[in-house]
Amino acid sequence: MFIKNTWYVAAWSHEVEGSNILSRTIISQPIMLYRKDGGEVVALHDRCCHRGAPLSMGRREGDCVRCMYHGLKFDSRGACVEAPAQERIPPQAKVQTFPVVERHRWIWIWMGDPALADPSTIPDTHWLDDPDWRGLPGYIHYHVNYLLICDNLLDFSHLPYVHPTTLGGGEDYAKIQPKVERLKDGVLITRWTIDTEPPPFAMAVREWSGNVDRWNIYEFTIPAILRMDSGMAPTGTGASAGTREGAIEFRGCQALTPETENSTHYFFSHPHNFAIDQPEITQSIHQSVVDAFEEDRDIITAQHKNLVLDPSFKMMAFGIDGALSQFRWAVTQRLDQERKAREETGVQA
Amino acid sequence: MFIKNTWYVAAWSHEVEGSNILSRTIISQPIMLYRKDGGEVVALHDRCCHRGAPLSMGRREGDCVRCMYHGLKFDSRGACVEAPAQERIPPQAKVQTFPVVERHRWIWIWMGDPALADPSTIPDTHWLDDPDWRGLPGYIHYHVNYLLICDNLLDFSHLPYVHPTTLGGGEDYAKIQPKVERLKDGVLITRWTIDTEPPPFAMAVREWSGNVDRWNIYEFTIPAILRMDSGMAPTGTGASAGTREGAIEFRGCQALTPETENSTHYFFSHPHNFAIDQPEITQSIHQSVVDAFEEDRDIITAQHKNLVLDPSFKMMAFGIDGALSQFRWAVTQRLDQERKAREETGVQA
Amino acid sequence: MFIKNTWYVAAWSHEVEGSNILSRTIISQPIMLYRKDGGEVVALHDRCCHRGAPLSMGRREGDCVRCMYHGLKFDSRGACVEAPAQERIPPQAKVQTFPVVERHRWIWIWMGDPALADPSTIPDTHWLDDPDWRGLPGYIHYHVNYLLICDNLLDFSHLPYVHPTTLGGGEDYAKIQPKVERLKDGVLITRWTIDTEPPPFAMAVREWSGNVDRWNIYEFTIPAILRMDSGMAPTGTGASAGTREGAIEFRGCQALTPETENSTHYFFSHPHNFAIDQPEITQSIHQSVVDAFEEDRDIITAQHKNLVLDPSFKMMAFGIDGALSQFRWAVTQRLDQERKAREETGVQA
Repeated sequence: MFIKNTWYVAAWSHEVEGSNILSRTIISQPIMLYRKDGGEVVALHDRCCHRGAPLSMGRREGDCVRCMYHGLKFDSRGACVEAPAQERIPPQAKVQTFPVVERHRWIWIWMGDPALADPSTIPDTHWLDDPDWRGLPGYIHYHVNYLLICDNLLDFSHLPYVHPTTLGGGEDYAKIQPKVERLKDGVLITRWTIDTEPPPFAMAVREWSGNVDRWNIYEFTIPAILRMDSGMAPTGTGASAGTREGAIEFRGCQALTPETENSTHYFFSHPHNFAIDQPEITQSIHQSVVDAFEEDRDIITAQHKNLVLDPSFKMMAFGIDGALSQFRWAVTQRLDQERKAREETGVQA
Repeated sequence: MFIKNTWYVAAWSHEVEGSNILSRTIISQPIMLYRKDGGEVVALHDRCCHRGAPLSMGRREGDCVRCMYHGLKFDSRGACVEAPAQERIPPQAKVQTFPVVERHRWIWIWMGDPALADPSTIPDTHWLDDPDWRGLPGYIHYHVNYLLICDNLLDFSHLPYVHPTTLGGGEDYAKIQPKVERLKDGVLITRWTIDTEPPPFAMAVREWSGNVDRWNIYEFTIPAILRMDSGMAPTGTGASAGTREGAIEFRGCQALTPETENSTHYFFSHPHNFAIDQPEITQSIHQSVVDAFEEDRDIITAQHKNLVLDPSFKMMAFGIDGALSQFRWAVTQRLDQERKAREETGVQA
Repeated sequence: MFIKNTWYVAAWSHEVEGSNILSRTIISQPIMLYRKDGGEVVALHDRCCHRGAPLSMGRREGDCVRCMYHGLKFDSRGACVEAPAQERIPPQAKVQTFPVVERHRWIWIWMGDPALADPSTIPDTHWLDDPDWRGLPGYIHYHVNYLLICDNLLDFSHLPYVHPTTLGGGEDYAKIQPKVERLKDGVLITRWTIDTEPPPFAMAVREWSGNVDRWNIYEFTIPAILRMDSGMAPTGTGASAGTREGAIEFRGCQALTPETENSTHYFFSHPHNFAIDQPEITQSIHQSVVDAFEEDRDIITAQHKNLVLDPSFKMMAFGIDGALSQFRWAVTQRLDQERKAREETGVQA
């Protein structure tokens, strides 16, 4: 069960280039993405209405796509405009289209009612292509339900345990209870660690003469979008009071997009605003994040296997779980709303 | 759900040689095939009646087979004739046998009521071993339900799209609506394309000075047997009026045998009656067919994955689907008949 | 469905060494085993009570284990003694512990009600570490339900058919009906073969001038423990009358532990009391057993596939199946008893 009336990240801009067609399953629907000759991105159901073959195995003909099974041709609005051996095309011969918006190197897709697709509700991730910031595009694939990864991102107390040699740091980091504020569609989490060891990934890109004050301030909103102001400054410079003197800063952008009930696409970048003319610094930061996300994947995949082995297992909430409990509650609310709306209108999911 | 009272192709003759035992699953039943010393082919359930071990892992002893788990011995009529540590063998100790007929290099098997197995209803495929024709034996395996492959074979409008560099040719080929006639157990399809480009596989085996008239005339009958008169002749020689002057001709024989609900055996050959003393021509034609069938398998397997992802998807019939709709209807009729007969007699499937 | 109130073999002693943690799934429960600093073995549920991550991916801290997802720490009685960012630990924060007993190089675990765990009911396998006997530790893994392997071990008539070049011997071996006596929790099987060919594994370790009298006398008890007195002596020396002059003797110990409904752990050793100072003899015997058990696995895995293909298949009992029928009946009785006890107390399985 997935929320439908929301913007999901479907792809990085560079994944949809030239005349190629990208096929990607999103919330259990096969989707194809391509650019019209003018560059505009189009999203169609990747399933010919005739016999169900993937249109992404088809041939681009201008802004149209021809199914390479039996030759049906569809325009970029999904209408069948040619079929073999018949003149008249029935009007119901069409494939579903999906609203898409390309913004700051991410292509967002709306899987629900097109009438509700409002681009102004897309979260701001301008750091992804802001000239004052530098980051590399990341993608990894998970064989678990996306909510297990949400849980992970909503509780950073795992950092020193899962990521001791990458993003982690001293275990005092986990001892702090972050501030959690409810947002309309998620939570705002604020975590400060004062006078702590700089984490390994930060030591790799700068010399630190002593301890730092470290912050992670992020919104995590439906469907599963993380936007984070994070960084650290030498202890004593007053970072927690608002100055960012001598600090290094990041604006992490992460998006989880369910592929199926048991698999997930993970898009991420970790832009920084220092040493932006030093590609090796950007690369070092990116690699630390990639390494750390593979550490997350190891433990979360192992957790998933345990849950599969015994579906009756009930998780037990601890103090650190405030944010994830609130987020899971928000997801459940939205699913309930959408279910009720479908029941009222009699429309099938 | 499969039709049981029909002849399926179980194997090529050469797959059952000497004292070896061939194990092959047919309509979800494990079957073993072997030759008696006199050469006659025997088909037994490949499952010892004792604990269910495969008899095909057993040992031939004359015309008998001994299970190499606990040593039970079965004769070629399936009767247990020896069991360890006991003199008297209970009469119900037997494995099921299946009627088989070897004809023109194919071994046909009857999976239903043996009393109804009439060899005279086996379709004629004499071109497979007729000295005036040459072809090579082909086999490929699919991980999809056999009906998706039937659909493919019942609509050749896919040729120019799926097979542009092998069996295909100009896309005008797909523009023609073939004639479809109902047969007792399937359909007869007649497709003529006048004044068209010779397809790549034909250009590889002969020089053509211009366009050709091309025909595909085939019966497709239950369970899934295709027998085709196909070929082409230079345009203007009157092929469609009945002469076959300057023509190249083929008599394709193809048989789909379901392995399980989601996998299929595919036996095929494409005999030709020209250049029969040139093995490189025979090989070239065979290779074109093999390459083309792998192209089919790619698109059909992708179609299958789409159908698995959303079992609620309804295919949409177009004009080109007349033959396949008729054939699927014929299959459904036969399945219904067999179901009713079982209900009346109280016999379990 | 598995018997819970019984001792299963969880591991060989040497699999749990130093500060490492062994993770092993037993009757569908993830279990972790480790040694306290004093050497005592501890078994905990391998699933953190918080979010379900495997504790076996955690870090040993003295006799405790810290979950390396969010840092919860558990003592060797399963109690959570530390959690990040909170002082008070709720008393229900704990993971299940399981009684374990280490005896003669095997670690036994009790998966049911701890109050019923009586170490005096653990079968005697002292030959595994008796200085007068020599054997090597064996382990193989099966992808089948454990009862199919029980069946195999309860009927040695398979020896000459499955193991002709290892444990087998003349096929007269299978012609004998063994004596089967019912025990409280299983069966006692006595099989004598008089004046038979020595089997290949015995010919590899000693010269025999003629035929032998061969015996296999073993208990097979719940859950699936085999303890066997076996061997052979030159025919005419009166072995079956009680002397063991000129004999070679073995005390095979084997234990099947279900991993899941469709997979099984198999622990075994085949101690001998002759040539105990010749490691190459011990190795030769062990290798014959390993080779033979791989032969068993081939046929049993093939049998399992046949049973999966048609779950409606009913096995047919022959005279040789007395012991396995009795054992399967005993298993069913125990499962019924445990089910009824749970229903009466209202406790969930």
